[in-house]
Amino acid sequence: MTVTTEVQLHLCPKFHAAVELIGKRWSGAIVQLLLKGPLRFQELQRAIPEISDKMLSERLKELEANGVLLRQVVPETPVRVEYRLTEKGQALEGPLKMLSEWADTWLLTPDVFTVP
Amino acid sequence: MTVTTEVQLHLCPKFHAAVELIGKRWSGAIVQLLLKGPLRFQELQRAIPEISDKMLSERLKELEANGVLLRQVVPETPVRVEYRLTEKGQALEGPLKMLSEWADTWLLTPDVFTVP
Repeated sequence: MTVTTEVQLHLCPKFHAAVELIGKRWSGAIVQLLLKGPLRFQELQRAIPEISDKMLSERLKELEANGVLLRQVVPETPVRVEYRLTEKGQALEGPLKMLSEWADTWLLTPDVFTVP
Repeated sequence: MTVTTEVQLHLCPKFHAAVELIGKRWSGAIVQLLLKGPLRFQELQRAIPEISDKMLSERLKELEANGVLLRQVVPETPVRVEYRLTEKGQALEGPLKMLSEWADTWLLTPDVFTVP
């Protein structure tokens, strides 16, 4: 292996961080749902029946800590809490749309695949 | 919530399967490296020093089982084993490139972010 090849094989740490962020179980799903507009906790729960309250809560906190979404308290009676994407989160629309198109083309039915 | 909203909030199972496949720890990294051309096990190891032999081996098997890459035995002396993307794997170039661009724009340095 030449030195040039070794340099080319360097893994981009930013890319890896992005995959880790979006690829965490249900994180991509949450972002994809929020691309359609702000949602309440219960609405996200209903859209992802497989997720537990605890995990949904954890993922929302992680995505908030990473600046992907905001937790917004709407001063109504009763108070309404909404989750909405930031500009950074909204910018994931392109990559997620392309991944979705890839999935439509290349994945027949999810249960055929061996992702545990 | 109206019935229409509920329909819109349905999570696409193919999209979710794609995120799960690529988002598994190091899977995205392996595919990104192979986009540059076929690589041997040792070359992948060198490019991802943090990955253990066992995990690299597991990920390669999963990606092979999902039709993303092929394990190819090149009949040389000594025998050379290479991993190369299939057409399906190569088609991930677009989505991963867009995610990489998002990361370049929005992630400052990976250690700033709180992805464990």
